[in-house]
Amino acid sequence: MNKNKQVGYLGPEGTFSHEAVLKVVDETDEIKPYPTILNIFEDLEDNKIDMAIVPVENSTEGSVLITLDCLTNFNNIKIIQEFQIPIKHNLLIQHGKTIDEIKVICSHQQPLAQCREYIYKLKKPVQSMPSTANAARYVTEIETAAVIGNKMLADKYDLKIIDENIQDYKNNVTRFLVLKKDAKTKPTGHDKTSIIISLYDDKPGGFYKVLYEFKEENVNLTHIESRPSKEGMGKYLFFIDMEGHKLDENISRVLMKVEKKVKMFKILGSYETINC
Amino acid sequence: MNKNKQVGYLGPEGTFSHEAVLKVVDETDEIKPYPTILNIFEDLEDNKIDMAIVPVENSTEGSVLITLDCLTNFNNIKIIQEFQIPIKHNLLIQHGKTIDEIKVICSHQQPLAQCREYIYKLKKPVQSMPSTANAARYVTEIETAAVIGNKMLADKYDLKIIDENIQDYKNNVTRFLVLKKDAKTKPTGHDKTSIIISLYDDKPGGFYKVLYEFKEENVNLTHIESRPSKEGMGKYLFFIDMEGHKLDENISRVLMKVEKKVKMFKILGSYETINC
Repeated sequence: MNKNKQVGYLGPEGTFSHEAVLKVVDETDEIKPYPTILNIFEDLEDNKIDMAIVPVENSTEGSVLITLDCLTNFNNIKIIQEFQIPIKHNLLIQHGKTIDEIKVICSHQQPLAQCREYIYKLKKPVQSMPSTANAARYVTEIETAAVIGNKMLADKYDLKIIDENIQDYKNNVTRFLVLKKDAKTKPTGHDKTSIIISLYDDKPGGFYKVLYEFKEENVNLTHIESRPSKEGMGKYLFFIDMEGHKLDENISRVLMKVEKKVKMFKILGSYETINC
Repeated sequence: MNKNKQVGYLGPEGTFSHEAVLKVVDETDEIKPYPTILNIFEDLEDNKIDMAIVPVENSTEGSVLITLDCLTNFNNIKIIQEFQIPIKHNLLIQHGKTIDEIKVICSHQQPLAQCREYIYKLKKPVQSMPSTANAARYVTEIETAAVIGNKMLADKYDLKIIDENIQDYKNNVTRFLVLKKDAKTKPTGHDKTSIIISLYDDKPGGFYKVLYEFKEENVNLTHIESRPSKEGMGKYLFFIDMEGHKLDENISRVLMKVEKKVKMFKILGSYETINC
């Protein structure tokens, strides 16, 4: 990556997005926390930052819907890379306290959902907060509250980890996208391409005809997701992720064929899968 | 509907789910608010209630994920009816206050998401709450807070409506399901059937082969949604809604054919679409 870039991420400091952004930026890059994913897209569109890292999908809870909606609405922002990190949750409380003294479990809604069975067994009520870092700050003030989040919170907020690896599914991972405005990428040999489409009507077989083209070109689809088009109940956009780069011959052919069959067609990017 | 049934819904009183449940129960039915959708499924499974009404999909924000997850996990609970209601949001504050004095907008995350553009123009921070009713109660205590929710909140919490119909998309509707344990339904002529499937592997064309069967039997799919199977990234369940009843000839045939091609197959119910 280039030097001295400004890179936006979903803050505040101490969140899993913070952990993710630290894995891919250079030391000379300046990282900038944002209160919402929408704000990140707005500033990237306005050239106020050079790059952004946003969560798009968790293996337990599914897609981050606001990320999909922003990818739909911001036409100049492209995906240039993807990577995933393991998400391990911990229960943290104030030093000197015990679990029996805890009256409420606080966190962002995603960790709360990813630890649903664990929380159910604790038999304590939950409180949804804007971020894990907000929840940790709250726990520093309220001695009967606990927070679910990553280990970074222990140091940053001077809290005690009383239970580790508490997510219901042990292989819990989150996929992040690296975004850039008006970006073009070259095939690397381990790429994916993401598109959004909408269909002309709801006739039987409408979506079937689209999938037929991918099958004909032997393209593997790694994810299909429907989201409301917001035009009313029963009208959907389809997010389709496939293996390959749009400059690969078979991907190039299939995209041309699909574009002719659908109402709305948009390429979100062809991007390398990187290991962190 | 029969008399003196106990019907569970997502409470507390004053939510859109409360509005929905009032549209379909008889006067003699006893309605019971629950703190979470998971609790509703648990009590229905344990025969503590006879029926339940849960939200499953909003035309702006998409599926209610916890409802899909519970439909996956509770094997004896079937969908027996569906209906939809328009969701009109309002901004409410304490009597005697003005919008300029408001410092924070409170609501459940779904209304906050459905009024994203409206809130963006207000330039005020938001606070996510467990329900619109919780948020309204908070506003009765905090004079600089406003709540987004339905009109019922004005009477119930003695608040003033200062803006109406504020959702970003005017045709905003939510689809609700009526659930019953071990229920069997008969075709009414305006039915839908919902199934969950998972595929054996991620070979190109795996999902295509499933859709082929629906196309061959001329069955219209009204919704396809993927959710993580929680077995790791890239493993999905597909929720498929189709027009018709499982006792209809073509639906019966297509379900048999699909069941043979997939790894996991579960019928969530064949159910009438009712108008409220």
